[in-house]
Amino acid sequence: MLINDRDLQFLLYELLDAEGLTKRERYAEHSRDTFNAALETARQIAEEQFAPHNRKGDEHEPEFRDGKAVTIPETKTAWRAFAEAGFIAAHHDAELGGMQLPTIVQQACQSHFFAANVSTAAYPFLTIAASNLLHAHGSPEQQAVWLPPMLEGRFAGTMALTEPHAGSSLGDLRTRAIPQPDGSYRIVGNKIYISGGDQDITDNIVHMTLARIEGAPDGVKGISLFIVPKFRLDADGNPAERNDVTLAGLLHKMGYRGTTSTVLNFGDHGDCHGYLVGEPHKGLAYMFHMMNEARIGVGVGATMLAYTGYLHSLDFARNRPQGRPVDRKGEGGQIPIIQHADVRRMLLAQKAYAEGGLALCLYASRLFDDTTSAAEPAERERAQQLLDLMTPVVKSWTAEYGVKANDLAIQVLGGSGYTRDYPVEQFYRDNRLNPIHEGTNGIQALDLLGRKMGQAGGAGFKALLEDVGRTLAEASSHRPLADLRERLGAARDAVVSTAAALAEAGRAQGPARSLANASVFLDMMGRFTVSWLWLRQAVLAENALSSSPDAQAQAFYQGKRQAARYYLRWELPAVHQQAELLKSLDDTTLEMRDAWF
Amino acid sequence: MLINDRDLQFLLYELLDAEGLTKRERYAEHSRDTFNAALETARQIAEEQFAPHNRKGDEHEPEFRDGKAVTIPETKTAWRAFAEAGFIAAHHDAELGGMQLPTIVQQACQSHFFAANVSTAAYPFLTIAASNLLHAHGSPEQQAVWLPPMLEGRFAGTMALTEPHAGSSLGDLRTRAIPQPDGSYRIVGNKIYISGGDQDITDNIVHMTLARIEGAPDGVKGISLFIVPKFRLDADGNPAERNDVTLAGLLHKMGYRGTTSTVLNFGDHGDCHGYLVGEPHKGLAYMFHMMNEARIGVGVGATMLAYTGYLHSLDFARNRPQGRPVDRKGEGGQIPIIQHADVRRMLLAQKAYAEGGLALCLYASRLFDDTTSAAEPAERERAQQLLDLMTPVVKSWTAEYGVKANDLAIQVLGGSGYTRDYPVEQFYRDNRLNPIHEGTNGIQALDLLGRKMGQAGGAGFKALLEDVGRTLAEASSHRPLADLRERLGAARDAVVSTAAALAEAGRAQGPARSLANASVFLDMMGRFTVSWLWLRQAVLAENALSSSPDAQAQAFYQGKRQAARYYLRWELPAVHQQAELLKSLDDTTLEMRDAWF
Repeated sequence: MLINDRDLQFLLYELLDAEGLTKRERYAEHSRDTFNAALETARQIAEEQFAPHNRKGDEHEPEFRDGKAVTIPETKTAWRAFAEAGFIAAHHDAELGGMQLPTIVQQACQSHFFAANVSTAAYPFLTIAASNLLHAHGSPEQQAVWLPPMLEGRFAGTMALTEPHAGSSLGDLRTRAIPQPDGSYRIVGNKIYISGGDQDITDNIVHMTLARIEGAPDGVKGISLFIVPKFRLDADGNPAERNDVTLAGLLHKMGYRGTTSTVLNFGDHGDCHGYLVGEPHKGLAYMFHMMNEARIGVGVGATMLAYTGYLHSLDFARNRPQGRPVDRKGEGGQIPIIQHADVRRMLLAQKAYAEGGLALCLYASRLFDDTTSAAEPAERERAQQLLDLMTPVVKSWTAEYGVKANDLAIQVLGGSGYTRDYPVEQFYRDNRLNPIHEGTNGIQALDLLGRKMGQAGGAGFKALLEDVGRTLAEASSHRPLADLRERLGAARDAVVSTAAALAEAGRAQGPARSLANASVFLDMMGRFTVSWLWLRQAVLAENALSSSPDAQAQAFYQGKRQAARYYLRWELPAVHQQAELLKSLDDTTLEMRDAWF
Repeated sequence: MLINDRDLQFLLYELLDAEGLTKRERYAEHSRDTFNAALETARQIAEEQFAPHNRKGDEHEPEFRDGKAVTIPETKTAWRAFAEAGFIAAHHDAELGGMQLPTIVQQACQSHFFAANVSTAAYPFLTIAASNLLHAHGSPEQQAVWLPPMLEGRFAGTMALTEPHAGSSLGDLRTRAIPQPDGSYRIVGNKIYISGGDQDITDNIVHMTLARIEGAPDGVKGISLFIVPKFRLDADGNPAERNDVTLAGLLHKMGYRGTTSTVLNFGDHGDCHGYLVGEPHKGLAYMFHMMNEARIGVGVGATMLAYTGYLHSLDFARNRPQGRPVDRKGEGGQIPIIQHADVRRMLLAQKAYAEGGLALCLYASRLFDDTTSAAEPAERERAQQLLDLMTPVVKSWTAEYGVKANDLAIQVLGGSGYTRDYPVEQFYRDNRLNPIHEGTNGIQALDLLGRKMGQAGGAGFKALLEDVGRTLAEASSHRPLADLRERLGAARDAVVSTAAALAEAGRAQGPARSLANASVFLDMMGRFTVSWLWLRQAVLAENALSSSPDAQAQAFYQGKRQAARYYLRWELPAVHQQAELLKSLDDTTLEMRDAWF
C-alpha cells in the first residue's frame, strides 16, 4: 500500500512523457525498460528495507548517548541497501558511478522510499541534496575528495543553515568563519534543527554549512558556504581526526521521529575546520540552488505520505462493514463503508491530493530535466522560469494538502484511525512537519507573490498560462469535459485578474499591502495548477476510454476522470472567493493590532 | 494561558446573559458573584492540579498491569480536587450535594479543566455524563445507591456503547443481557473504545452499558440500558465482590493519551451482573439523551484545546523576533513575528475559532438551561428545538476547526511548533480525536440534514432564522458593521435556499441523493451559525466602543470587532460555493465506484 504502480506509469509515460527524455543525448542509454527496472528495484528495497521499521523508528526515536546520536539498527541496513543499489548517485554521471537517470525518474524512485518510511529516507535525501550542492559549486579537488564517499554511501550530508535566532531570516545568521593561513577556515557558532546532524549510520558526515567570514558584510550578502566534516580526512581521504563540531542535543519531534534533528556546536574548542565552497559571500545563493531542489523533494515526501495514507484508508474502507445505505435504514446486513457517499468523498479528496500531488511533483521534476537537457536554450530557459514559479507552489500545496489527506485517512478509519495500531496517525504526524521545514508556507507565499510572479517580466506565469491554454483547447474536443473546461477557464481568468490587481497595488501602494494576503494567493495558485494537471489527466482518460480498453483499464481511467471532477467541482471554485478577497486588498490582518488579541 | 478571563466574562454576561438566569427560581440563590466564585475555583484547580501534568500524562500513558489500568498518580490527585470542590455535582440539586449551577456556568467551569488537561478532565466529564443519565432514567432506588458515590467522586462512570463491529451503527450491537430470577441480568459481550473503562483513580466504576435482552427485537429498538459496576456493592453500598467485567486491554492513541481507552469483556465467566435502567428496549433513546449532552461537552473540549493553543501561539508570536517588515528588507533589527501580516492571519483565525467556538458551546448550554428552567413551556420547547438543531453543529464545527486552530498554532511556532518541548503539538494530537469520538462528523452531518432540519416541521431552523434576523436588525444601526451585516444576510439567503432545495430533492428523489453531500451542509451551517454569533459580538463591541471605555476595554472590543471581520470576510463566503454545490445535487461522490479508486 505504498503507491499505485499503474498510476505512476500513467504519470510518467502518459502525462509527462518521461520516455521522450531518452531521445536526448544524456539519457540515450536509457529506455522505458531501464527506467522501470530502477523503479522496480526502488519498490523492492522500499518494501523490504524501509517499510518494515517505519513504526519502530517512530516508537524508538534516536537517543543521545555519550555525545552521539544512536538510531535503531534498521536505519543503517536500509541506508546500505539504498546506497548499494546506486540510488544516492542515481542522477549523476556514469563516470561518478551514477545511473544518469533523469530527475523525474529519480524522484519517482524516491517516492517509494518516502511512502515506505519518510524518516529513514530523509538521510539519503539530505545526502543527495548535499552532494548536488558540492557537484554544482565545489572545486574539482573538493569534488574528488568528498563526492565519491557520499555517492557510495560511506559519508552522509546535511544542510546546516538554521541558528537559534535565525530560521526564516537566514540573513541574520551569526556563525563565524575565521580564515587560516592554509586557506581553510575555523568555524564558530551554533546551529539548530539540523536534520541528520548526527547519526551512527555512516563513517562521516559532511555538513554543508553557512557562516559569515570575519569582516563580511551584514545580511544575506555576507554569507559563505563551507564544507564542515564530522571527521577530518587523512591523506587517503579516510575519516581520521574528529573535527570540532559536536552534538549538543537532539530535538524531539511530533513526527519524522526516526530522523535525528540536532543542535550542533561548531568550534567550542576553537578547532572546527571548514573549507570554503565557491566564492566568498555567495553561500546563500548556492544554498538556495540546493534548497529549491530540496523543496521539490519535500513535496514528494509530503505527497507520498498522503499517497500511502490514501491507500491504507481505501483498503480499510473496502473491508470495514458498518451501517447501511441511507435509503435502507436498519435492514439487511452492514455494508463496507466505501459504499457511503461521505466516505467516498473522503477517499476522492485523498485521491485528488495524492495523485494530483505526485503529478505536480513529477511535472516539476520534468521541468528540472528540461532545464538541463532540453535541446534549445530557449526551451531550457522557459523550463527554468516555470520551475522557479512552481517551486513554492509545489512545496506548499503538497505539504498543506498532504496533511489534509492524512487527516481524512484518519477520519475514514474512525476510532481505529486515532490508535497507534494503525499507521495513518503516524503519517499525519510525520506530514505535519512539511509545511514548516525547508521554508514555511508563509515564506513560500512571499517567494511566489513577492518574487517569482514578477521575475523576468512574469515570464514563468505567462508560460504557465500558455500551457493551461493548450490544455483548455485539447479539452474542448471532449463533451464530457465541457463543465471542467469551463471551470478551469474561469479560474484562469480569476488568477490572471488577481495577479494584475496585486501587481498594480504593489506599484501604487508598496509591498506591505499587496503582500499582506500572499498566503491566499499561494493557495489560489496551487488550486489552479493542480486543477490544470487534473484536467490534463482527464483529457488523457477521455482519449483512452474512447478506445474501449479492457475493464481494468476502464476503471483506472474512470477513476482519473472522477477525481478530476471532484477536484474541479469541489475544490477549485474557492479561487473565486479568494480572488474577491485579494482584489479588495482586504486589510483585516494588516489592521489588526497586537493589543487587540 | 488557559483562557482569557475577560472573554469568558464577556461571553457569559454580555453575550448570553447568564446573570438573567438568577431570576429563575432554580437559580435564585445564585448571583454573578457566586458564578464567578465557582469559575475562580475552577481556574485555580485547573492551573494547580490539572495543567502541570498535562505533558507527563501524554508521555506516560496508562499501563496495563495484571489486568488493571495504572495511571500516573497526578490523575487521582486532580480528580480528588475536582470532586472535593463539588464540580461533579455542580449542576445537581442542593439536596444531592450539588451547587445547583446552571449548565452554562458549569460548562464555563469545565472549560478551564479542558484547557488545562483534556485527558485528566475526561474522567470527571464521563462521570458527570453517566450520573446525568442515572439521574434522568434510573429508579429512585438506583439513584439512591449509585448517585451519591458518583457525585462525591468515590465512583466514576463510563458510557459502554461501542463494540468491535458496531461503532457508528449502534443498532448492530450484540452484547446480551440474560434475565435472572432476582430481576437482575447477566451481561455477556465485548466492548471497545470505552473511555475510562478502567483506572486506579476511584473505588468503583459504573459502566452505563447498552445490551440486548434475550429475545429482544433486532436493531435499535431492541437495546436496553444497564448499570454494570466494576465491583458489586455490599448491603451498605460499598464496593465488595468483583463483578465479571474485565479489562482485556488498553488502546494506544495519538492523543488524549492520559485517558484510558479500553477493551472490556463482560461475562467471560458468566457472572457479570447488570441492572436494567428504565424500561426494556429504550436504552438507545436514554443513551442519546446523555450523548447529546456529551456532544456539547466534546465541543467544549475541542474548543478549549483550540483556545489554549491560540494563547500559547499568541505568547510565542509576541516574543519571538524573526525577520523584518516586507517594506524594510534586511535593515534594522528583527521584529516580533506578530508584526507579520501572515502571522496575524493565523492568530486571527485561531481567535475566531477559539472564542467563536466557546460562544457557540456556551450558547448551546444556555439553550439547555432554557429547556429546563425557562418560565413558559413554549420558551422551553423553542429552546429544545434550537438545541436539537445545534447539537450536531456544535459537536462537529468545534472539532473540525479546533484541530485547524491547533494546526495554525503549530505553524505560528514554526520549528518549535513540531517539537515536543512546546505544548501545541500535543493539543493538535489531543484534538484530532474530537471529530471522531461521540459520533463522527459524518454522523453529525446525517443527523443535522436527515433528521434535525425537518424535525417538528423545521421549527428549530425557523427559530434560528428568527434570532439571526434580530441580530441583523440590531446591526443595522451600526455603520461600521454594514459590510458584515450584508454578508450574514447573503449567507442566510444561501442557507435558506439550499435547505429548501435539499428538502425538495429529498421528497422527489429520496434520501440517497439529498443526503450524499450532507457534510458540506453541516459545514455551511457551522459557518453560518458562528458568523451570526460573531456578528452579535461585533454589535456588542460597537455598543461598548461608542461609550468610550478605557484603553484596555477598547482594545478588547476592537479585537472582537476585528475577529468578527476576519470570520465574516474570510471564512463565511465559502457558503456560497457550498450552496452552489449542494443545490446542483452534485453527484461526484455518489457516482464514484469502488473499482475506480
